[in-house]
Amino acid sequence: MSRRFKVAILGATGPVGQRFLQLLENHPWFETSTLTGSGQSAGRSYRDAAGWLLETPLPESAANRVVRETRPGAVDADFVFSALDSNVAGPIEEEFARAGFPVISNAAPHRTDPDVPLLLADVNPGHVALIAEQQRRRGYSTGYLVTNPNCSTAGLVTALKPLDDAFGVEAVSVVTMQAASGAGYPGVPSIDLLDNVIPFIANEEEKLEIEPGKILGRVQADAIEPARLAISAQVNRVPVVDGHLESVSLKLRAKANAADVAQALAEYVSEPQLAALPSAPERPVIVRSERDRPQTRLDRMAAGGMAVVVGRIRSCPILDFRFTLLVHNTIRGAAGASILNAEWLVKKGLLRTREEIRAESGKTPAVLSGSH
Amino acid sequence: MSRRFKVAILGATGPVGQRFLQLLENHPWFETSTLTGSGQSAGRSYRDAAGWLLETPLPESAANRVVRETRPGAVDADFVFSALDSNVAGPIEEEFARAGFPVISNAAPHRTDPDVPLLLADVNPGHVALIAEQQRRRGYSTGYLVTNPNCSTAGLVTALKPLDDAFGVEAVSVVTMQAASGAGYPGVPSIDLLDNVIPFIANEEEKLEIEPGKILGRVQADAIEPARLAISAQVNRVPVVDGHLESVSLKLRAKANAADVAQALAEYVSEPQLAALPSAPERPVIVRSERDRPQTRLDRMAAGGMAVVVGRIRSCPILDFRFTLLVHNTIRGAAGASILNAEWLVKKGLLRTREEIRAESGKTPAVLSGSH
Amino acid sequence: MSRRFKVAILGATGPVGQRFLQLLENHPWFETSTLTGSGQSAGRSYRDAAGWLLETPLPESAANRVVRETRPGAVDADFVFSALDSNVAGPIEEEFARAGFPVISNAAPHRTDPDVPLLLADVNPGHVALIAEQQRRRGYSTGYLVTNPNCSTAGLVTALKPLDDAFGVEAVSVVTMQAASGAGYPGVPSIDLLDNVIPFIANEEEKLEIEPGKILGRVQADAIEPARLAISAQVNRVPVVDGHLESVSLKLRAKANAADVAQALAEYVSEPQLAALPSAPERPVIVRSERDRPQTRLDRMAAGGMAVVVGRIRSCPILDFRFTLLVHNTIRGAAGASILNAEWLVKKGLLRTREEIRAESGKTPAVLSGSH
Amino acid sequence: MSRRFKVAILGATGPVGQRFLQLLENHPWFETSTLTGSGQSAGRSYRDAAGWLLETPLPESAANRVVRETRPGAVDADFVFSALDSNVAGPIEEEFARAGFPVISNAAPHRTDPDVPLLLADVNPGHVALIAEQQRRRGYSTGYLVTNPNCSTAGLVTALKPLDDAFGVEAVSVVTMQAASGAGYPGVPSIDLLDNVIPFIANEEEKLEIEPGKILGRVQADAIEPARLAISAQVNRVPVVDGHLESVSLKLRAKANAADVAQALAEYVSEPQLAALPSAPERPVIVRSERDRPQTRLDRMAAGGMAVVVGRIRSCPILDFRFTLLVHNTIRGAAGASILNAEWLVKKGLLRTREEIRAESGKTPAVLSGSH
Repeated sequence: MSRRFKVAILGATGPVGQRFLQLLENHPWFETSTLTGSGQSAGRSYRDAAGWLLETPLPESAANRVVRETRPGAVDADFVFSALDSNVAGPIEEEFARAGFPVISNAAPHRTDPDVPLLLADVNPGHVALIAEQQRRRGYSTGYLVTNPNCSTAGLVTALKPLDDAFGVEAVSVVTMQAASGAGYPGVPSIDLLDNVIPFIANEEEKLEIEPGKILGRVQADAIEPARLAISAQVNRVPVVDGHLESVSLKLRAKANAADVAQALAEYVSEPQLAALPSAPERPVIVRSERDRPQTRLDRMAAGGMAVVVGRIRSCPILDFRFTLLVHNTIRGAAGASILNAEWLVKKGLLRTREEIRAESGKTPAVLSGSH
Repeated sequence: MSRRFKVAILGATGPVGQRFLQLLENHPWFETSTLTGSGQSAGRSYRDAAGWLLETPLPESAANRVVRETRPGAVDADFVFSALDSNVAGPIEEEFARAGFPVISNAAPHRTDPDVPLLLADVNPGHVALIAEQQRRRGYSTGYLVTNPNCSTAGLVTALKPLDDAFGVEAVSVVTMQAASGAGYPGVPSIDLLDNVIPFIANEEEKLEIEPGKILGRVQADAIEPARLAISAQVNRVPVVDGHLESVSLKLRAKANAADVAQALAEYVSEPQLAALPSAPERPVIVRSERDRPQTRLDRMAAGGMAVVVGRIRSCPILDFRFTLLVHNTIRGAAGASILNAEWLVKKGLLRTREEIRAESGKTPAVLSGSH
Repeated sequence: MSRRFKVAILGATGPVGQRFLQLLENHPWFETSTLTGSGQSAGRSYRDAAGWLLETPLPESAANRVVRETRPGAVDADFVFSALDSNVAGPIEEEFARAGFPVISNAAPHRTDPDVPLLLADVNPGHVALIAEQQRRRGYSTGYLVTNPNCSTAGLVTALKPLDDAFGVEAVSVVTMQAASGAGYPGVPSIDLLDNVIPFIANEEEKLEIEPGKILGRVQADAIEPARLAISAQVNRVPVVDGHLESVSLKLRAKANAADVAQALAEYVSEPQLAALPSAPERPVIVRSERDRPQTRLDRMAAGGMAVVVGRIRSCPILDFRFTLLVHNTIRGAAGASILNAEWLVKKGLLRTREEIRAESGKTPAVLSGSH
Repeated sequence: MSRRFKVAILGATGPVGQRFLQLLENHPWFETSTLTGSGQSAGRSYRDAAGWLLETPLPESAANRVVRETRPGAVDADFVFSALDSNVAGPIEEEFARAGFPVISNAAPHRTDPDVPLLLADVNPGHVALIAEQQRRRGYSTGYLVTNPNCSTAGLVTALKPLDDAFGVEAVSVVTMQAASGAGYPGVPSIDLLDNVIPFIANEEEKLEIEPGKILGRVQADAIEPARLAISAQVNRVPVVDGHLESVSLKLRAKANAADVAQALAEYVSEPQLAALPSAPERPVIVRSERDRPQTRLDRMAAGGMAVVVGRIRSCPILDFRFTLLVHNTIRGAAGASILNAEWLVKKGLLRTREEIRAESGKTPAVLSGSH
């Protein structure tokens, strides 16, 4: 594909924003055109404003770029990725959508809006069907909102989907061991996390218990009918840099044995795999057979951080099966998920360049009109 | 009580052995008389052999003591604590019991023997009733075996006991986050645990699923009838020094609300509390109401490491209730539990000094006879 | 001594303030009467405002105490300890001194004032001679300022003092490995410190290079003539909770061998030891002979955190000698040093209760007059 | 270059051996043909024997390969890399050299042999001149020994070389903060390293004080005349996975200012850079100007782990200059250094395939003769 999209990263200076920038470096379709930040960051160079946290070098192309304010008029892009803090993201994202920008967001506020897809492109690709209704209802022209799930949910639901397809999932009990980078920046003080486990993350259990139902639900006319499954989540913060490990047990609707479960997980592929999208892992789930895997440090970068690694699949004395899963929280659980979502939207014709829109419609899209 | 017991610590050089020594320093009843070690350690000073790992100083009285071989003839004591590695403890402990020594053991091999109490003195104090039958069956004279549970089990079952008494516990799902010190020494290599979580500990899930049934069971004639409860355990090793955190959910037989659960836990006391034994915590369970407690580093030393701290008590969408608990794995989960067990045995007249035995029986106990 | 002093802790909610509270619990002379905090903390209970970080329980007596504003009129005390943040401490401390309160401070701003003692009571006890001149010059009545050094300096200078006395210290090269708790709260984000070393702490090298000269200097008339020694400091933050480790090499003015150096360190005692002050360690320096000590986790609580532990004393191919030292940064390096300073001031008659002042002078001290 | 070399990795199962395997995956010239291990490993699949520790996946091509015994007869290769443990490497490496194999070794025993190059190809490329004399003296035919320095030395000497060339280095004081992976496997127990710093690594200070003199020395006839510089090394183990950070201060023979020092470091290139060898970093030293860099986690993978990162260059109150450097201990400090050395030996015509040797000499090289 020779089409190139200009993309903006909203909230580009934090850990998720940095991960967007890192993953978009050398992306075949998307080119970062604008980086936005908060009031303190705007006007400074990205190098100064961001405090680069990742082990790969800060991309030279971004280092000296001036951070812009987070408002539509400051952005030159075909669409935007939102790495905004969930406390402020809600109205800002709406403002961008209203201004004509498709907003592919990692933030929480719109995830539960009935007309906004909560999308993992290789789990519920069909949920993009909500977009047309959303635009109609909200009066958006070319803009719209698409969200991806919470980082822990992203891992869990990727493992639930193949099992729900194959056997039906009735109940899930999950205990998480989550990484420091999941808390944003500055996040958890080091004195609170060294030699410690903290059994609490604000709002996280709620997200884990609600989001999977929507993601595994069915598009019914103009809304999602949530899947009926009970989820019990207990979350913990552990002293690791990246990677959320989850101990899962679950009850299935149909009979299965552990080999069936492993096979369903290992063989699962979805539309992004079939379409060979650039960020799609070959398999969304990698099944390990060793007795002590997945491990956070060793497995978080599997398939470039885009695969969920599952191991220790075995029966459960209370529910039916247990396993351990690992998800890279800022890649598959955040920036990588958004990017794969955007690729899927391109594939479905739902993301077009402004030039394409202009050519097709004969009129200038709102984002180009300069009226804002 | 002015009686003083001479005690030996078998396997005194490892982390649990060191904890025994630390906790026995200044104990009102027990005085460490002999420290034993493996073949490499025997004959060296304790300072040289042990590689002291604890934050308090190596007791001066122990530093220059010569480590003895782990055999009855090398030990001068009224009874022995066993901190032996579970791989070798089985036959050695029997040898000591046969030689006339009560063996209060933290090791695993005899925990599941039907005639050996698996004792936490403030959870199942009545299980000491097995000792007489054990001596009869095995032909022990003054010696016998008493074990305490696995470190993770010790935490879990302390929280289950008050609930089982009050409401009946039917099913328990537990996910642990266990400390490095639980693996003994050298234990887990640092390169395996830094920035990592390992979702596997050999034999640990089996212990957690089996031991509570015996501990919560009833003495029936000369054996324990295990409690009927289903347990699902998933264990993880996390990079903390001390303290096992456990995310628990459970199903009760009787109706209760979260306040009932909290009250049952907070108000629980048992025989060692009533008897004011020196190592008994004022309350076996401390209930915290903050939303983010217990935390490993902050709460592991509650009541000197002898209390289990429970927090985040709330209902569960799948079973009935959930909570988080913390147990200090080498104190309440190991050496401290053994010491409290020994205090309870003293209180029950089941531990006597060799002088007392001699005075009462008019004959020299085997351990004094020099025949071994 | 049956005299009891009422003391306030200024800035009581942070890590150093908490350490003051912990160390003053059960202090034989000092009783915490007032806890102050910032605007956000004032009016809340200490339990809510502080977010207790220490492994020992929050003292019950403090938990429900209302945090007061940090101004003289809100404080009921014979003197105050200052755990204020160095960014704000300067003028606030002066305000308290002017209002009649002796201010025993751990904060940085007044350390370099020529008329303010930079005091470690068992290193430079004679520097209290500056106080009279300070009061005269600044027009303070009963109030004055006494500071203690930076946490890293406290460790270093305690080891330098015995060597300077015995042989003269000419040059010192020191590289530190400092704990998270040294950065205050929230301090360093966990994502910045897990699996990482940061070779920079703002202003820390400057303090380490300047403060020892003043501390080792001589009182000349009404000022300190700094000791002449060159110091090169390189500081690093490492992922440990408490305890600053320092690799030191130094050049002496007189000939010595390693045994001489060890002996001078091990035998050093000063006025607070001779006076058996409650917080004085038996020996300010503990010398270890093992090849791998001191270690941060194992040795930081030596003598309750009030001794500096030195090991690996050996010759240096460039300067004369090298050794490794460890100081507990929030005890000997902060709150403990202040408390020992206060004890020394009591001993020297420089701290008196308000009743004593009133009785002696026949007039009400400023701090009681209610004029502020 | 279309020539392909078959290479064996001796001691392939440990951390350094694994790093060799990882770095040789997709190498343009070298192809791993044989993996050897200890007696316990031999005969097992590499996957089973190795316990893969790295974050990238175990190369599929190696996973099922059978680990061979570490003896010449079991190896099919043009030359061998040695990742053997230093305790056993000495005689085994000689045996391989005698059998005709060039041995490119990361192990310590032969580093100080006068006729063995202690080589960092972009620091002292000319030291390969020792090889001919070595072969003559020892009676080796096609085999020989080449070593690379200790991991900490590799970092230090890479930064010293440009300064020695430009200004002459007279004295160096270095304090290291070294990673867990530097201790091999299992290495340091986690209970010894969590929340701790250990100020001792056996033999490490000796290596750091001796090796740079040889590396910076001159080839004189058939031996190296060591450079005259005094080195004082103090080493510490800190809780990080990979990356050795070093706080350095040094005295130069010629006048310079900090900008000169930075420029000399940043501009340094050597033969491997000029020859564009596949593993040569573009610049051996990367100079950072931020006040808080290099940091272990953020900078260890600079230039794929093959560059040394230097920051905080500033004057020193005692010697002349100070800076902080970071070296990836298992890449530039071990396997990567060996591989670059081998590439340089190829470039110099000192490594040839067995076919080339046979063709040139008309006789079968010893390693092909089957006589062993």
